[in-house]
Amino acid sequence: MAFNHKHLLGIESLSASDILTILDTAESMAEISTREVKKVPILRGKTIINLFYEASTRTRSSFELAAKRLSADISNFSKSTSSVVKGETLKDTIQNLEAMNTDAIIIRHASSGSPHFISSFCSSSVINAGDGTHEHPTQALLDAFTIRQHKKRIEGLKVVIVGDILHSRVARSNLLLLNKLGARVVLAGPPPLLPPEFQHYGAEVMYDMDRALEGADVVMMLRIQLERQKRIFFPSIREYRSLFSLNPERFRRAKRDAIIMHPGPINRDVEISTELADSAKSVILEQVENGVSVRMAVLYLLLGGKEREIPD
Amino acid sequence: MAFNHKHLLGIESLSASDILTILDTAESMAEISTREVKKVPILRGKTIINLFYEASTRTRSSFELAAKRLSADISNFSKSTSSVVKGETLKDTIQNLEAMNTDAIIIRHASSGSPHFISSFCSSSVINAGDGTHEHPTQALLDAFTIRQHKKRIEGLKVVIVGDILHSRVARSNLLLLNKLGARVVLAGPPPLLPPEFQHYGAEVMYDMDRALEGADVVMMLRIQLERQKRIFFPSIREYRSLFSLNPERFRRAKRDAIIMHPGPINRDVEISTELADSAKSVILEQVENGVSVRMAVLYLLLGGKEREIPD
Amino acid sequence: MAFNHKHLLGIESLSASDILTILDTAESMAEISTREVKKVPILRGKTIINLFYEASTRTRSSFELAAKRLSADISNFSKSTSSVVKGETLKDTIQNLEAMNTDAIIIRHASSGSPHFISSFCSSSVINAGDGTHEHPTQALLDAFTIRQHKKRIEGLKVVIVGDILHSRVARSNLLLLNKLGARVVLAGPPPLLPPEFQHYGAEVMYDMDRALEGADVVMMLRIQLERQKRIFFPSIREYRSLFSLNPERFRRAKRDAIIMHPGPINRDVEISTELADSAKSVILEQVENGVSVRMAVLYLLLGGKEREIPD
Repeated sequence: MAFNHKHLLGIESLSASDILTILDTAESMAEISTREVKKVPILRGKTIINLFYEASTRTRSSFELAAKRLSADISNFSKSTSSVVKGETLKDTIQNLEAMNTDAIIIRHASSGSPHFISSFCSSSVINAGDGTHEHPTQALLDAFTIRQHKKRIEGLKVVIVGDILHSRVARSNLLLLNKLGARVVLAGPPPLLPPEFQHYGAEVMYDMDRALEGADVVMMLRIQLERQKRIFFPSIREYRSLFSLNPERFRRAKRDAIIMHPGPINRDVEISTELADSAKSVILEQVENGVSVRMAVLYLLLGGKEREIPD
Repeated sequence: MAFNHKHLLGIESLSASDILTILDTAESMAEISTREVKKVPILRGKTIINLFYEASTRTRSSFELAAKRLSADISNFSKSTSSVVKGETLKDTIQNLEAMNTDAIIIRHASSGSPHFISSFCSSSVINAGDGTHEHPTQALLDAFTIRQHKKRIEGLKVVIVGDILHSRVARSNLLLLNKLGARVVLAGPPPLLPPEFQHYGAEVMYDMDRALEGADVVMMLRIQLERQKRIFFPSIREYRSLFSLNPERFRRAKRDAIIMHPGPINRDVEISTELADSAKSVILEQVENGVSVRMAVLYLLLGGKEREIPD
Repeated sequence: MAFNHKHLLGIESLSASDILTILDTAESMAEISTREVKKVPILRGKTIINLFYEASTRTRSSFELAAKRLSADISNFSKSTSSVVKGETLKDTIQNLEAMNTDAIIIRHASSGSPHFISSFCSSSVINAGDGTHEHPTQALLDAFTIRQHKKRIEGLKVVIVGDILHSRVARSNLLLLNKLGARVVLAGPPPLLPPEFQHYGAEVMYDMDRALEGADVVMMLRIQLERQKRIFFPSIREYRSLFSLNPERFRRAKRDAIIMHPGPINRDVEISTELADSAKSVILEQVENGVSVRMAVLYLLLGGKEREIPD
């Protein structure tokens, strides 16, 4: 179980074996969260910064709980309570934080590439919690964990990702990961949100959602960012829904045992019908649960995994 | 000391015996907060979410300190830093939070009944930290704890609650609790803020504060929400003060050993004179101190009280 | 190592011996932050409130990490999430917080003197984290720690402080501390920001930065608050920079081994050139690192230092 990375910047820099190491470690971590005492002292005395420049419920709290279950000290920073308002540069903010002997900096930022920039000068481990329209690696890892839980494998599966592919860091990280593990990825969405170039990155590109869904093992719906409509990426919610929303009729084209995923927060009855979101086919809340396990695994492997054992 | 509830949604669903169990447990908890090391490992490894949709100093921090003194992990959420801004429904927010294996969700929300709604689908313990104009059970419990500390009993006492009864969750929870424990409750306030129907809920209703105070053991003043004035519930602060503010002259009508309570934050020289608020008759800060003990007791009873003992 | 203070309100009330006790204690604390497990149980079970009425990255998180490394429980309050918005007085807010059996209240507030006011009625230890234009004692202490680390002494050094002296609590606390420890302090800045009266407080006042820098051991640049420009304290950024910005040419007038300090956040190429800020002469990030050690020392000495020992 070798894992020789200092940072987690994206799926791009991980090998298939690295990914499997994280998923296997996350299995052990999942067990901890079901204990009566959900806490182990593995990362006691480690200092972790949770630096969120964009609003988040799920990801911020998932990292926070992951850190606390490993007994690390974690401090939250959001844009509104910090000196960011005084116009300090990102580099200066990070250097100041890590001067306090931090071990890891988890960052979500609207600028694509900012975690990579930070890692170029940072001696703490940098963990990308979502950078612009670029990557969101822990989301792809928790998605893979969830798929493996249900399908026992990832290789050879047909995974269909539907929605605003162009702007989605979730789609990008999933595409990279699923390719590395040998799945067949089909991307579907309206043309302005799904440039044909994506077929050069190991995906099939389809503009007809019904065709895309044929024989799918996994259907991953993306959140529609309603604010994009104004910028004329798609003409209207009504039209988007008629063509790209997941409803029971459409879902019948997928395999009988297909699962439905969504990174959340969902827009009910926009990209997914409420009926399906709440159905037994939906694994959306399992994704959230697995998020904590995967983030515990990432923190463990980056900060202490080599020398220490997971206690009983 | 049996306590067989999963949630604390309101005083309404508690029996007199439940209430006494909480108050007795709070006595043990109060002692912990006076120790040199104010911390016991009773709830170590438990995950608690502090979800506040309305601003609060007292209640939020009181729950936070209560959880920390029992060694639980607690995470704060406020409206501004979470995905609530992205338009997620309350149900989805809660289901996502509890998918992370939370043990308790403490919620303050502007909508009456929201904790009850949440408890209908939530497998974590739900604790109502104030819902709209409905209930604020831990406030009533800390008030009862404080009264009992001073009066050694609750049964038979005359408790006068003065102010905006109509909109006060504090008044409602106190009325329910004091009735269950056999106190005599008198409500006083201006007619638009005190509908006569309240007499059907086991209270006497009086529009003359001076008469109401006669022989009171406990005078509980409510905060005037100054923003209500605009909606013409009362004509002016000056008139309100002349009729319903507690001042030394008026307070002389209560018993010689009567105590003065207020849930805070107080409007000095609006509903209560500064002289009385800071006098030896005022137990306002004791209420705050007792709030931590009562909340420790509630967390202990809901999350771990059955199997574990409070350590020395 | 006697330290007989309950509060840390300012440098003004500390003796030279008190200051040295803090600096010596901070040396032991610095070692803890370099350990594999950066945490000791010295302040376990203590309750600390971090009450910030002004935005801050550095100071708030520095206190937070200091408290956590000593195993204290610390709760953050900022203006936006608390009842401060409901118009409660500062005194009432503090009394309510400390009714919850807090051990220390760390406060940053825009009003000069507010920590002193609070300490007049507060039974918790009050720690001034910056009050208006008055004092910022932990900043001066971490500055002294950093100077001593590089120069092995403070007595006899020439320290030049440059910028908006009039409004700077950092300058004020440093001037007081450096005087007590026998340094020679020179203040430089534009006349509207540096009244001649400062020479009565043990400093030399110079309006020519080049002359001030001659033979300096330490050059401490202050942050220019760009919003002051509008109030006509200085005519333009360009003119300010030409007269009072630290650049390599100007810095050559200081001693060869002089160090450059700044309390942060820096305005690059306004009060200090990027080249110098990032040079080997700059100890700006060491100041940040030492901030945690000094704050650990302060918390330790105020809350538990007398009876307990720092564990190995």
